[in-house]
Amino acid sequence: MSDYRKDLGKIIKDEKRIITDHIPNVYLSDKLGRKEGNATAVVLAKTTEEVSGIMKYAYENRIPVTPRGAGTNLVGSTVPDHGGIILDVSGMNRIEEFDEDTLSVTVQPGVLLKDVQSYVEERGLFYPPDPGEKESSIGGNISTNAGGMRAVKYGVTRDFVRALEVVTADGRVLTVGSKNVKDTTGLSLKNLFIGSEGTLVIVTKAVLRLVAKPETQVSVIIPYPDLRTGIESVLTLLRADLNPVAVEFMERKVVALGEEFSGVSYPRPDAGSYILLSFDGNRDAVDASVRKASDIAKETGAIDFVVLNDKEKSGEIWTVRGALVNAVEAVSEQEPLDIVVPIDRTADFVEYVNSLEEKTGVRLISFGHAGDGNVHLCVVRGDRDEKEWEEVLDRVLTELYSEVHKMGGLISGEHGLGLSKRKYFFNETDGNAVDLMNQLKEALDPRHILNDKKSYIR
Amino acid sequence: MSDYRKDLGKIIKDEKRIITDHIPNVYLSDKLGRKEGNATAVVLAKTTEEVSGIMKYAYENRIPVTPRGAGTNLVGSTVPDHGGIILDVSGMNRIEEFDEDTLSVTVQPGVLLKDVQSYVEERGLFYPPDPGEKESSIGGNISTNAGGMRAVKYGVTRDFVRALEVVTADGRVLTVGSKNVKDTTGLSLKNLFIGSEGTLVIVTKAVLRLVAKPETQVSVIIPYPDLRTGIESVLTLLRADLNPVAVEFMERKVVALGEEFSGVSYPRPDAGSYILLSFDGNRDAVDASVRKASDIAKETGAIDFVVLNDKEKSGEIWTVRGALVNAVEAVSEQEPLDIVVPIDRTADFVEYVNSLEEKTGVRLISFGHAGDGNVHLCVVRGDRDEKEWEEVLDRVLTELYSEVHKMGGLISGEHGLGLSKRKYFFNETDGNAVDLMNQLKEALDPRHILNDKKSYIR
Repeated sequence: MSDYRKDLGKIIKDEKRIITDHIPNVYLSDKLGRKEGNATAVVLAKTTEEVSGIMKYAYENRIPVTPRGAGTNLVGSTVPDHGGIILDVSGMNRIEEFDEDTLSVTVQPGVLLKDVQSYVEERGLFYPPDPGEKESSIGGNISTNAGGMRAVKYGVTRDFVRALEVVTADGRVLTVGSKNVKDTTGLSLKNLFIGSEGTLVIVTKAVLRLVAKPETQVSVIIPYPDLRTGIESVLTLLRADLNPVAVEFMERKVVALGEEFSGVSYPRPDAGSYILLSFDGNRDAVDASVRKASDIAKETGAIDFVVLNDKEKSGEIWTVRGALVNAVEAVSEQEPLDIVVPIDRTADFVEYVNSLEEKTGVRLISFGHAGDGNVHLCVVRGDRDEKEWEEVLDRVLTELYSEVHKMGGLISGEHGLGLSKRKYFFNETDGNAVDLMNQLKEALDPRHILNDKKSYIR
Repeated sequence: MSDYRKDLGKIIKDEKRIITDHIPNVYLSDKLGRKEGNATAVVLAKTTEEVSGIMKYAYENRIPVTPRGAGTNLVGSTVPDHGGIILDVSGMNRIEEFDEDTLSVTVQPGVLLKDVQSYVEERGLFYPPDPGEKESSIGGNISTNAGGMRAVKYGVTRDFVRALEVVTADGRVLTVGSKNVKDTTGLSLKNLFIGSEGTLVIVTKAVLRLVAKPETQVSVIIPYPDLRTGIESVLTLLRADLNPVAVEFMERKVVALGEEFSGVSYPRPDAGSYILLSFDGNRDAVDASVRKASDIAKETGAIDFVVLNDKEKSGEIWTVRGALVNAVEAVSEQEPLDIVVPIDRTADFVEYVNSLEEKTGVRLISFGHAGDGNVHLCVVRGDRDEKEWEEVLDRVLTELYSEVHKMGGLISGEHGLGLSKRKYFFNETDGNAVDLMNQLKEALDPRHILNDKKSYIR
C-alpha cells in the first residue's frame, strides 16, 4: 500500500471509500462527459469531519481537490483538470431535520433535489426552487445558485438557503447563516459562498427555507401568431399584479420538435409561438390571476387562451417543455447555453439568434424562461467532425456572447461558468470585477487547491 | 490654505464642498448622537469620479475614510472614530432612470427611501422594502441590508438590489450585478457588498428591482388574551398559504404607551396582546386571505378579529405601531435593539425579556416583526446618570445577547453592528466566521482605511 493511500486511510477509515487505482471514468467528467480530467484518488466522504480531514491534508500537501456531488453539471465544474483528489460528497445524503416551526429542512449536500421536494411536500410544505435537473444534488444547486422554472415568483436557490455548514480550503469547519429570517451581523459569507462553484468552500450541510404549500396550481397556454408578439406580451403580464410562478416561451418550430419526440400534441398548431404560464396560491387568487391573464392575452394579440384544467394534459404540456433539450439531442449532439438578457430584450435576442443561424449555417434552437429573460439555446453540432465542431462552436459562441454583452445580458443565468465558459466570461467582464473575485479567492484559498482555475479564477 | 485642503481641492473643484475647519457636529455622529468622533475634513461628493478621486488619495496617504449618507443609523456606523475624511454622498441624490420594461429604477446613493417609494408608486410600480426610517438614504439601506415591516412577504433590501456601482478602498470603480434577473457568472460581489456597512466599498449608484403595484391592501388587527397565545398564532398563520405582507406583535402595555403618545385608541383594550396583519395583491386574493386569517384567529383563541376597512383608522393603527419607539422616548432615553430569534422562539424570548426586566429592574419594552422573529427592544434609561447607565446597559446587553445566542438568535436583524454591537458580536460569534470576514476585509482593503474597526473588523 502506498504512503498516499495510507495517509488517506488515516482520515477515511473505510478502505472501500478510497479509490486510488483504476478510477472509474464517471468521476473524471460532468454530465455531458465531453471533457475529461485525471485524479490520483477518489474519496467518498460520509461526514463533515472526513471532509475537513481531507482538506487539511490536501492543503498541507498542496494537492488539488475537486468537490463533487451528483455530477449533473453541464460546464465541466466537476472535471478534475489539475489531478489530485476528487472529493465526492454524494454519500452524505441524509435529511437531518424537518422543522415545521421555523419552516425549514436541514439536509446533507448529497441529497437529491427531487428527494427534498417530495419529502417536504408529503409533510405539507414546499421547496420552490425547481431547476430542470431533478437528479442534481442540493450541494450542487447551492454551488451554482441553481434557478429553474419557478424563479419568476419564488426566486432562485439563493433565496431559499437559510444556513450552510462549510469546510474551507484549509479544513476549517464553520456555519454561516442561521434559522433566523433576518441577519445584519457582519459580512454575508453565506451569500458569497452560494454560487461560488466549489472554489471557496465545500458545503457539508444546508438549512433550506420552506414555504406554505400552495392550495392549488393552474397552468395556461397562450398561442400567439409570432415570436415577438408572444414575448412582448410577457412584459405586460409582469407589470400586472398576477404573480405568475413560471413564464415560458417557445417558438412553434421548437415545439414541433418536442411533439415529434414525445408524441404529445400542443393546441393550435397554427401558432407562431406559445407562452406557457403557471399560477399557484389560494384558489381565489389563482382564479383572479387567470381571468386577468386572459384579458391581457386578448389585448396583446393572442390567437387563443387555453386553461389546462385537465391535470394529465397539463402534465404532458410541461413534460414536452421540460424535454426540449432531449428532443434536440435525439437529432444531434448540442451545446446547451443558458444566456440571460434584460427581460425587455428577450425578443430582440431570439431574433438575433435566428439571424445568426442564417448567417453561420449552424442550427440554433432557443426557448426558455421568458419571465427572467433566461434563454436556453442549443447549438446543434449536426454531422460536423470533432475538429470542425470545436472551431465552429468557438466562433459562434464568441460572436453570440459579444452580442449578449452589448444587449446588457450575461453569459450564464443558471449553469455557472465551470471550465466551458471561462474564456467568454473573461472576454465580456469588467477586469476590475474579475480582479476583485480573484482577490477573494486568494484570501480564502491562498494555495489555490480548491477547484482552482474554474469559473472566475485566472 | 493648507496643503491638505489644496490636495482635496484638486479632486473636488468646488470650495464649498470641502470643510476642513469647524466641522459641524452633525457629521461626527449618527442619528442617536451619543458617540462622537473627529475628522480632518468633510467632503461633499457629487459624482462617482469625485468619490473615486478621494479614495485614491486617501488610500495612497493612508487616511481613514468614513462614508456617510443620510446619517440615520443607530449603531455608530457614521461616527468617524479614527479621524480622517468624512465622505458624504447625501448630495448624490438624483433618480437617474425609471425603466418600466425591466421593472427597475436607477438611483444615486443619497436618494431618500421615501422619495424612491413615492416616485415609483406614482408611476404604477412598487418598491417593497420599508424600513421604519423613511428619511434614510438608499445607500445606507444597502449598506445595512435594511429590513422593515414588509419583509414577511417581500424580503429585505438585498432582495431588491439588481446592480451596484461601487468604489473600492483604493479608488477603483466597478459595477456588480446587472439588470438581468438571473446571474451565475462568478462570485456574487454584489451580495458580499450588500450589508457590509461601508467597510468594503462605497456605493455610488444602485439599480433597484421593482414589482407590480398591488391592486389593493388590507390590514387586520387580532386581539388575543395574552402575549403567548398571540405570538403562537403567528406560526399557524405562516404555515397557511396566506402570504401576509406584515405580521407585527404588540403587548397591550406597550400599545397603551403608544395610545397615550398619539391620542389614537386601539380596539379591545381588554386584550393582552395584538397581532397586526396586512395583505396586498389582487382583491380576490386578499379577500380570501382575510377570510382564512379570520378562521385561524378563531382556532387559535383570539378574542376578536377587526378588519380595518376604514383607510383613516387603518392608517392611525399603523402610525401608532410605527411610533412606538418615539412613544418610549417621550418618557426616557432608550437604547434601541433589533434582536432576531427563530420564529418559533419569539414568545419564549419576549417572556425571557419580561423576566429579565423583573430581575434587573431595568425597564425593557418589546414589540416588533413577529413574522420574522425580529424583536425591537427598548432598554429604558430612566433617571440613571451617565456612568450608571453605561454600566447597567452593558450588564443587561451581555446577559440578553448570551440568552439570544442560546436560543439560536442573532444580535442584529436590521440595524447592523456599527460600533455599538461589535463587542457583543465578537462574544457570540464563531471565531472561524469572524476570521473569514476579516480575511476578506484584508483582501479588499489591506490598508484598512474604509470604515475600519466597525462591524466585524477586529
